[in-house]
Amino acid sequence: MRLKTLKGVSWMRKHWHTSFCSCCDIEGVPVLEEATSALNYLFDPKSVAVVGASTHYNKWGYALFFNVIRSFRGRVYAVNQRGVAPFGYKAYRRVTEIPDDVDLVAIIVPAQSVPEVMEDCADKGVKVAVVITGGFRETGEEGRRLEEDMLRAARRGGVRIVGPNCMGVWSSTSNLNALMAPIDPPDGSIACVSQGGNIGVSILGFAERRGVGLSRYVSCGETTDVQVEDYIEWFGRDPKTKVIIAYIEGVSDGRRFLEKVRRVAPHKPVIALKSGKSEKAAKAIGSHIGAVAGSHEIYRAAFRQAGIITVDDLPELFDVATAFLTQPLPRGNRVGIYTAGGSWGVVATDACVANGLNVVDLPREVIEEIDKLLPPRWSKANPVDSAGDRNWDNIRKVPEVLLRSDAVDALLLLGFVGTSSWYIKFSEDIPEAAKNMMEKDEANIEAMVKWRKEYPKPIIVATFSEEERLLLRLRERGIFAYPTPERAAKVLAKLVEYKQFLEKLGS
Amino acid sequence: MRLKTLKGVSWMRKHWHTSFCSCCDIEGVPVLEEATSALNYLFDPKSVAVVGASTHYNKWGYALFFNVIRSFRGRVYAVNQRGVAPFGYKAYRRVTEIPDDVDLVAIIVPAQSVPEVMEDCADKGVKVAVVITGGFRETGEEGRRLEEDMLRAARRGGVRIVGPNCMGVWSSTSNLNALMAPIDPPDGSIACVSQGGNIGVSILGFAERRGVGLSRYVSCGETTDVQVEDYIEWFGRDPKTKVIIAYIEGVSDGRRFLEKVRRVAPHKPVIALKSGKSEKAAKAIGSHIGAVAGSHEIYRAAFRQAGIITVDDLPELFDVATAFLTQPLPRGNRVGIYTAGGSWGVVATDACVANGLNVVDLPREVIEEIDKLLPPRWSKANPVDSAGDRNWDNIRKVPEVLLRSDAVDALLLLGFVGTSSWYIKFSEDIPEAAKNMMEKDEANIEAMVKWRKEYPKPIIVATFSEEERLLLRLRERGIFAYPTPERAAKVLAKLVEYKQFLEKLGS
Repeated sequence: MRLKTLKGVSWMRKHWHTSFCSCCDIEGVPVLEEATSALNYLFDPKSVAVVGASTHYNKWGYALFFNVIRSFRGRVYAVNQRGVAPFGYKAYRRVTEIPDDVDLVAIIVPAQSVPEVMEDCADKGVKVAVVITGGFRETGEEGRRLEEDMLRAARRGGVRIVGPNCMGVWSSTSNLNALMAPIDPPDGSIACVSQGGNIGVSILGFAERRGVGLSRYVSCGETTDVQVEDYIEWFGRDPKTKVIIAYIEGVSDGRRFLEKVRRVAPHKPVIALKSGKSEKAAKAIGSHIGAVAGSHEIYRAAFRQAGIITVDDLPELFDVATAFLTQPLPRGNRVGIYTAGGSWGVVATDACVANGLNVVDLPREVIEEIDKLLPPRWSKANPVDSAGDRNWDNIRKVPEVLLRSDAVDALLLLGFVGTSSWYIKFSEDIPEAAKNMMEKDEANIEAMVKWRKEYPKPIIVATFSEEERLLLRLRERGIFAYPTPERAAKVLAKLVEYKQFLEKLGS
Repeated sequence: MRLKTLKGVSWMRKHWHTSFCSCCDIEGVPVLEEATSALNYLFDPKSVAVVGASTHYNKWGYALFFNVIRSFRGRVYAVNQRGVAPFGYKAYRRVTEIPDDVDLVAIIVPAQSVPEVMEDCADKGVKVAVVITGGFRETGEEGRRLEEDMLRAARRGGVRIVGPNCMGVWSSTSNLNALMAPIDPPDGSIACVSQGGNIGVSILGFAERRGVGLSRYVSCGETTDVQVEDYIEWFGRDPKTKVIIAYIEGVSDGRRFLEKVRRVAPHKPVIALKSGKSEKAAKAIGSHIGAVAGSHEIYRAAFRQAGIITVDDLPELFDVATAFLTQPLPRGNRVGIYTAGGSWGVVATDACVANGLNVVDLPREVIEEIDKLLPPRWSKANPVDSAGDRNWDNIRKVPEVLLRSDAVDALLLLGFVGTSSWYIKFSEDIPEAAKNMMEKDEANIEAMVKWRKEYPKPIIVATFSEEERLLLRLRERGIFAYPTPERAAKVLAKLVEYKQFLEKLGS
């Protein structure tokens, strides 16, 4: 049994649960120890049972069971109280009827039945229960009572709860897809915890379509038991995970959250999207996961102190995560910009300045070196605007001049690749021109790949295009590109922010 | 001849050319009258000559000539001083050698040769010259002299100049593509003037890939002659154009600009992206088009007063334009939100509040009506969160309840369509489920199309996905969807802003 009553629980109640508190500790139910060992079973179970596996294609229990059986490498069991199971699987009426050990249970039956199912899980010795079902405390008094019954049953058997009111779990190492949405992100190094199931679906979809690899994903729902910080702590120790992203609506215990995350952030970047900025949104969180969102300003300050990088929207969450995966940290905020066109340089400069980056004045020797490469009409300043020159060999040398300069901490490339996209449809009409563009883009991509290895400075590419084909083409070469200079500048600013956090820690 | 010396020119010099002034009027050269008739020839020429048409695939004069001959319905002439022309065309060494009338000339030869070419254009009676060539005033004193020579030659013959340092023109009615980039936006109702050629390329690419139709496009470059406001004025009178978008770095004459645009804005929305917010960017504009960017705050205030809708980045320019094309104006700022998931509702609420929208408290009767349609776990408030319910028939009725309510001015739909995208790849494995999702999405799209006709309120869709396939699928049904709630909320806020501008005018 992993139950114990922590000393000083009343002190915790009083001091930790302050502005963040939405905790639902139950009178008489002991606090559990750390969730780490249970999470090993969540992300690497040997066996999974789906309670509520359904034969009807319009039921969540159908979709989730389908995803589990088509992905998971271990044993899978269908539990259905009417004794029917989809895809020719044997149906167990109760978890306790399953003859073998069960590590992980996904529960997708009406809220009224969940406490009883949890009693079975406790009897069976299940390690973790992912409770997809909603309709608990977020709906009022009866829901709260059901949630307490569920929690009491779980604690009796040491079952740890993910959720309730969540949308499942995904893990690369066990090939586990216990989600409702049939989405398959590639294997990778980003771990994600999302307090919103549908935001999580968007995150997974983004990862799948953009070819951004995940290591783990969990929709943590109302976090009645295992908390957001428990997942982050586990990700921190997970060798598969290099970058951690989180969508957070509210944490149960602010101090515990910060203490745990603060230990992770210096080693692995933790990037968070925190919603509930406005009073109206905080109210919506209440009806969504029954949590108190807390003051957004308190969150922002606390997150910053703990080294958490906050972002403003969903695309940015991925933008920043991919940058941390593929870029070194810059020494400072001095950006050198290469652009194929003046106006791109202008809007990128606006974006850099708005994000606290320094579009640095270039030293005389850098100007002189570029002067030898570009025609006289080039901008003679940062942004370095080649002004429509078509001498690709020379242009390719220009960004390297910036990378070599001590005055430049990071490079922003605008319009450096992508032109060939426009020519593809004319490759029969003007084959030489199309080939020329393809070769130019290919050589430029190769140059970027080479620079990535040679220069320990961020090299950020803005495509000025949301074209998926182009973004994926670059992605295949290990380059995550950003569709606008605003997004590219934000990414760079976050790398600078994290570097400054680390320096402050070290000083 | 369309030459005349305007009365009060010295007063204009003194008073109009204040904070915005980058005008390059030349001593002794008379001011021209309005550009309207010349712009008729720009967008609907009968004949086009390309000066600098090149046989080499890596030259701009090759790409531009290719685009003209493959698109334009009228007569095309190649002018090349060495007497060679691409694609088997006859090469004229000078414009004056062309036997027929020439309405429009695109000039793409080195700056040094441009004044001489312009003399020929004046002699020939050319109506408009699009000067692609750069290297004029933005490069210093010699460039300024060349520009003055070019302008003097043009004025002698009444030739109006687009550019210099621009990237061409595109027009739907004459099927004219006189651009360097081989991009083909669909025929439509958005007219665009861009002071940045490469930003323009991004705009055109966006339009082509997203299936957003344009009526006209002009890269206006350094606006040495025809000004940004002249194009906007012409678009204002153009029956093909319903919405006007502009990328602006700096205008030559602020008062003239505002007086002209002010007359257009109440009839056709004018949406502008103004760069040069920061001092650094203003400096970059100087080396880009030789213009003085002016104080960004003065611009913002002036634009607002004139009814110009300003946006923050390139995607937003299109987001807002498509909304004006397809949505009625809302009576006020009260938004009703339907969401398939709580977290989507939370982030959308944040986005709405941040953009000055009111996520309105729903009247009791609306709550009661929705209560009959959704299971008890729904949010009972705005955002209306169906909390994972799968009764599609009922869900489809929910947004209509919001649309019918007098308390709601606009509807925001989150997760209402798009689920089927995930199922496409499994349509053989779970055909019933995939079909179910396809039918649900299709029925929901149909409902939206119906509501669009029946309710005079904006209905804005956020897909929570940047997936191009989904966005295009909706686009084909006349629905422009937005990939994030932030983008959707911004769009809605701009519709409200324009409505308020019109109301203020009317009062």
